[in-house]
Amino acid sequence: MKADIINPFLSSVSNVLSTMAMLEVSPGKPSIKEDVMSRGDVSGIIGMTTATINGSMAITFPDTVVFEIVNRMLGETVTEINDTVTDLVGELTNMVVGGAKGLLEEKGYDIGMATPVVVTGKNHEITHKAQGQNILMPFNSEAGTFYVEVCFDT
Amino acid sequence: MKADIINPFLSSVSNVLSTMAMLEVSPGKPSIKEDVMSRGDVSGIIGMTTATINGSMAITFPDTVVFEIVNRMLGETVTEINDTVTDLVGELTNMVVGGAKGLLEEKGYDIGMATPVVVTGKNHEITHKAQGQNILMPFNSEAGTFYVEVCFDT
Repeated sequence: MKADIINPFLSSVSNVLSTMAMLEVSPGKPSIKEDVMSRGDVSGIIGMTTATINGSMAITFPDTVVFEIVNRMLGETVTEINDTVTDLVGELTNMVVGGAKGLLEEKGYDIGMATPVVVTGKNHEITHKAQGQNILMPFNSEAGTFYVEVCFDT
Repeated sequence: MKADIINPFLSSVSNVLSTMAMLEVSPGKPSIKEDVMSRGDVSGIIGMTTATINGSMAITFPDTVVFEIVNRMLGETVTEINDTVTDLVGELTNMVVGGAKGLLEEKGYDIGMATPVVVTGKNHEITHKAQGQNILMPFNSEAGTFYVEVCFDT
């Protein structure tokens, strides 16, 4: 997958988390994810369409990381994955893709976004079905590490 | 949600399963799904966009049901949720939405489809984030019962 598609997602994640959750994140090294095991307990998943290629993104948080983000964004203490958590993960998913969409439009890609779906469950597995490599991007922060996966048709 | 959006999905599921898996299915009574627990072990999830509303669909199979469908479609015996299973669920998801898209276009809705994502895991939970009711449609068949969820912005 081309860096010019990946980079807007890297930027957007940092922008959204620093703006919305006052959480500075530092992107780790992207890798090709060969397995399907999620790297956390709750994932926001969204499909994307362009005129030429389709794909999907997932943003996955371990529970402790998303609890801290809820606390920073809403001032609320949560200790289980409830509606507050899934709503927030859905919103973050929308904001990340919305931000990336803006950056991609500047590069000439016109992205259509579907609504997100939030999946939870210990050991849930996510298989992207676009015909390209699944790029796994870790993000380190004070709240802990979370992960973004992006897979587009090549 | 309007019946003229739901009915094409009901028809498409029946068409796809009878054509591709030689499996006759009879739709049960649709209901509003208030909880988020999936009704099976593997779900194909796809986002959809139209000019005016967005939404998402999930098709969820208990493992025994999807194993029988794999057997009917591919003549292969599977006993665990592996790549063959997730590939097939991804394909079925595409075909169901593709079929519904055709029927919806006849009614004047123009649906954009993202690529599907397949989620697996015992007790995975799916939260649709469109702003409408989540309609749960059971389908009974010789292979067992499986479920389709459709949620669109109202």
